[in-house]
Amino acid sequence: MPERKPQSDNSFRQRLHEVIFEADTPAGKLFDLALIYSIIISVLVVMLDSVSELQLRYGQLFFVLEWGFTLLFTVEYLLRLSCIGRPLKYATSFFGIVDLLSIVPSYLSLFLPSGKYLLVIRILRLLRVFRVLKLVQYVGEANYLLRALQSSRRKVLVFLLSVVLMMVIFGSVMYIVEGPEHGFTSIPRSVYWAIVTMTTVGYGDISPQTDLGQALASLVMIIGYGIIAIPTGIVTAELTHAKQVTTQSCPQCSAEGHAPGAKHCKDCGALLNP
Amino acid sequence: MPERKPQSDNSFRQRLHEVIFEADTPAGKLFDLALIYSIIISVLVVMLDSVSELQLRYGQLFFVLEWGFTLLFTVEYLLRLSCIGRPLKYATSFFGIVDLLSIVPSYLSLFLPSGKYLLVIRILRLLRVFRVLKLVQYVGEANYLLRALQSSRRKVLVFLLSVVLMMVIFGSVMYIVEGPEHGFTSIPRSVYWAIVTMTTVGYGDISPQTDLGQALASLVMIIGYGIIAIPTGIVTAELTHAKQVTTQSCPQCSAEGHAPGAKHCKDCGALLNP
Amino acid sequence: MPERKPQSDNSFRQRLHEVIFEADTPAGKLFDLALIYSIIISVLVVMLDSVSELQLRYGQLFFVLEWGFTLLFTVEYLLRLSCIGRPLKYATSFFGIVDLLSIVPSYLSLFLPSGKYLLVIRILRLLRVFRVLKLVQYVGEANYLLRALQSSRRKVLVFLLSVVLMMVIFGSVMYIVEGPEHGFTSIPRSVYWAIVTMTTVGYGDISPQTDLGQALASLVMIIGYGIIAIPTGIVTAELTHAKQVTTQSCPQCSAEGHAPGAKHCKDCGALLNP
Amino acid sequence: MPERKPQSDNSFRQRLHEVIFEADTPAGKLFDLALIYSIIISVLVVMLDSVSELQLRYGQLFFVLEWGFTLLFTVEYLLRLSCIGRPLKYATSFFGIVDLLSIVPSYLSLFLPSGKYLLVIRILRLLRVFRVLKLVQYVGEANYLLRALQSSRRKVLVFLLSVVLMMVIFGSVMYIVEGPEHGFTSIPRSVYWAIVTMTTVGYGDISPQTDLGQALASLVMIIGYGIIAIPTGIVTAELTHAKQVTTQSCPQCSAEGHAPGAKHCKDCGALLNP
Repeated sequence: MPERKPQSDNSFRQRLHEVIFEADTPAGKLFDLALIYSIIISVLVVMLDSVSELQLRYGQLFFVLEWGFTLLFTVEYLLRLSCIGRPLKYATSFFGIVDLLSIVPSYLSLFLPSGKYLLVIRILRLLRVFRVLKLVQYVGEANYLLRALQSSRRKVLVFLLSVVLMMVIFGSVMYIVEGPEHGFTSIPRSVYWAIVTMTTVGYGDISPQTDLGQALASLVMIIGYGIIAIPTGIVTAELTHAKQVTTQSCPQCSAEGHAPGAKHCKDCGALLNP
Repeated sequence: MPERKPQSDNSFRQRLHEVIFEADTPAGKLFDLALIYSIIISVLVVMLDSVSELQLRYGQLFFVLEWGFTLLFTVEYLLRLSCIGRPLKYATSFFGIVDLLSIVPSYLSLFLPSGKYLLVIRILRLLRVFRVLKLVQYVGEANYLLRALQSSRRKVLVFLLSVVLMMVIFGSVMYIVEGPEHGFTSIPRSVYWAIVTMTTVGYGDISPQTDLGQALASLVMIIGYGIIAIPTGIVTAELTHAKQVTTQSCPQCSAEGHAPGAKHCKDCGALLNP
Repeated sequence: MPERKPQSDNSFRQRLHEVIFEADTPAGKLFDLALIYSIIISVLVVMLDSVSELQLRYGQLFFVLEWGFTLLFTVEYLLRLSCIGRPLKYATSFFGIVDLLSIVPSYLSLFLPSGKYLLVIRILRLLRVFRVLKLVQYVGEANYLLRALQSSRRKVLVFLLSVVLMMVIFGSVMYIVEGPEHGFTSIPRSVYWAIVTMTTVGYGDISPQTDLGQALASLVMIIGYGIIAIPTGIVTAELTHAKQVTTQSCPQCSAEGHAPGAKHCKDCGALLNP
Repeated sequence: MPERKPQSDNSFRQRLHEVIFEADTPAGKLFDLALIYSIIISVLVVMLDSVSELQLRYGQLFFVLEWGFTLLFTVEYLLRLSCIGRPLKYATSFFGIVDLLSIVPSYLSLFLPSGKYLLVIRILRLLRVFRVLKLVQYVGEANYLLRALQSSRRKVLVFLLSVVLMMVIFGSVMYIVEGPEHGFTSIPRSVYWAIVTMTTVGYGDISPQTDLGQALASLVMIIGYGIIAIPTGIVTAELTHAKQVTTQSCPQCSAEGHAPGAKHCKDCGALLNP
């Protein structure tokens, strides 16, 4: 990051960067904590503002709070832009866009009438919580989960593809069996029913009435009930495998597959690299 | 595959075979991609055509598209027949029949009045998507899943048999406890209720009203909630096992499936490569 | 089994015992197959007989079939009694009682008016299917499952106890929060709601209406959704463990933990006892 | 525990302590058994007392029983206080507070009118059942489960955080898509719907009506159906891991937790006993 500003300003920017982007210093931790509370409270305000009774009684309070948070997040966004080495890269990164989306809807609502829909975008502020995960040292756990998901991605996709195919086919068959008079008004709606049933959600807004339909629905349910075992098995096998062995290899005999926390090679007894 | 045609024609058929049945050449990949999109769009057309509002407005467009796809798939089917060594074997294979079922309903609908039901068969075109899986190299994943399912098949069957027995017995008891006045009009319907409940779908179209019935239903729910652990455990144990076996093969007898950490081949006792 | 009958009769009883109680001879297999079909058809007759439309139309046929099966099973029961060494032990065993319960209701219905309830007991005939499992060689699978269930029995019980406690406590709290005006008319009914919700069945016949109630219900749902992981984990760990290693130990170096199917010790290469 | 009472009284207190707090002596076991039955019956009385028909008919009986149990538990509480070394520590411990909460509501109901809500607190008596687990020697199982849960706590928290974020975001989007006219009257209520759907409970009291809403709901369902695999995988991996570690302990440094097949201690490198 080549910087061309004078030293004093540079060090100020560096300190700002430490506080805003890192969580190693006390000031950085405090900033992150303040940020996480602001995000949660501002999201709660957006949510409560949508309840009409509360909107009638506390609408003005919500309005003031919302603009307070919007200004706060705007200042934070500008500070982030100012203290980072490559502002453009940040602005186009995932979190940069989320940061921007957190404040833009409030300003746009000043000019646009249908603000209601815009304002819901502010809920995306919640995604910023993930940035603060580093504070509570949960990054390792999140990475572990992501890695296991990533390595089982393809198998889960094949499974989901098969499930969706089954849903479409079962939905289409039910469309013929039950027909529009029992709520299965079209194939897409019948497929929706198949999804509601196979995932064991079961709203009951559409449910089979004929004997054949109920027999078929029973089949769909039992399949949906049973095949959940498959993605669970895939992810579990992935996680169990990731757990069992470290990636250490013995410096003497190159043996691998040591238990987590092992200090000596389990085959030759040599000291492992820490 | 003994061929009796002249060389030039033979090589043309070979090239056609490469393009249509394989996915190693650029032309083959392009063909598979085009096919997958045609299948998905044609299925979407069939689905949307069943929505009465859309049918009224875009019915003519759907009609044209549908016949376009039918002609396309017909040409494809004939090409497949012409370029394969043993056409009859292909025509009677699983995918051969699916390919035929994808086009026949449209032609039949010209002669038969109750076309509506026939046309839904075209949804089976979706099954053709599985053929194209080879394109995206998911075959390995699919095979891995199929193998694990196959080796846990018997255990899952015993589990399912037990579950179905429980459903029939619980359903019958509920038929006595609740009776026709609370929606449990017959044993088959009560068994349907037991399936809806035990799989945790829970439509709510039939639900117990008496105290005893609700107590019994609670038991059914807790059982259904708990025993899903069993198929999941079976499949997971199978998948974990498939993982745990190393990919080593014996340098002497080429046996595979050695335990992690094994030094000697489990079949012939030769030293394994470390 | 000391037998005091003359040789010829003894051998006839032995052959009868082979046919009825075993499945190793062709006659035994045939008998078991015939039995399994009789059971399934007779249960279907009982189920269909409860559908009032079918009862009106085919009632007489059902009546004849039912008495046919009852006589058949009576003869079978008497034959079983006659050819077994200790008839009393059989008659008081689990399957002996099930066999008796399969035929008694039909005879009792001749004398008792409220036959409807009695007749449903005949559904228990289904349990006899488990006896025939030996025919299809699924005993090993069933034993494997039973062993894993048995060894995880205590952990699952502790889990179920905790879940039931949670259901009672959550149900009681909801009784206060929602009250009788929203369907939570008593604590037992509220507990029923908690069971319906926590097992993710969700009929919707009782559902929270107040804001606090919905918030609490959300908590119950998320807990119920998450903790299913626990019994699944217990059973899976049990099954995975049972799978991973045989109980073989090397005759040379006493190493254990060999992969299923291993012929040579994985540590020293010696031949394992088959 | 320094005791300043005369010897004879001291030994009486010791015996009382043995009977009440321990379960090794026959008297202690008997006491625990009597306690567990009293707890269960008293909780049943509280539950049945809330059913208005039963309250009308057996109200007086319930009243007498309830006061009997209250006096019994009061005596038990006082005995516990008197025979323990540090009464204050017990009184402020978790079980000490539960014991107190089991009896206080009944006494308070004498002075306060809105007794109904108070009395439900008595349901917490159920928690006392956990104390008696030591009787049936399930402590080991409970500890095993608790340890696995504790070590997977962080991963499950990250998972739950992600799920709750998804629920809030999906709920907010559905609030815009469906709107108040289809039951999605506010964002909190829409989030409630998202929770009901994603956990596959599916009451059906609120369900999407528009095509876009149903498509989005389908996505929510499939995600909720699939991601249950993740906590299950986490807990299973934890439990499987707890199983896989051998029970070997190093003859030199007594370290435990060696991988199956290890020959050398992973901590000090000494040879493990085979």
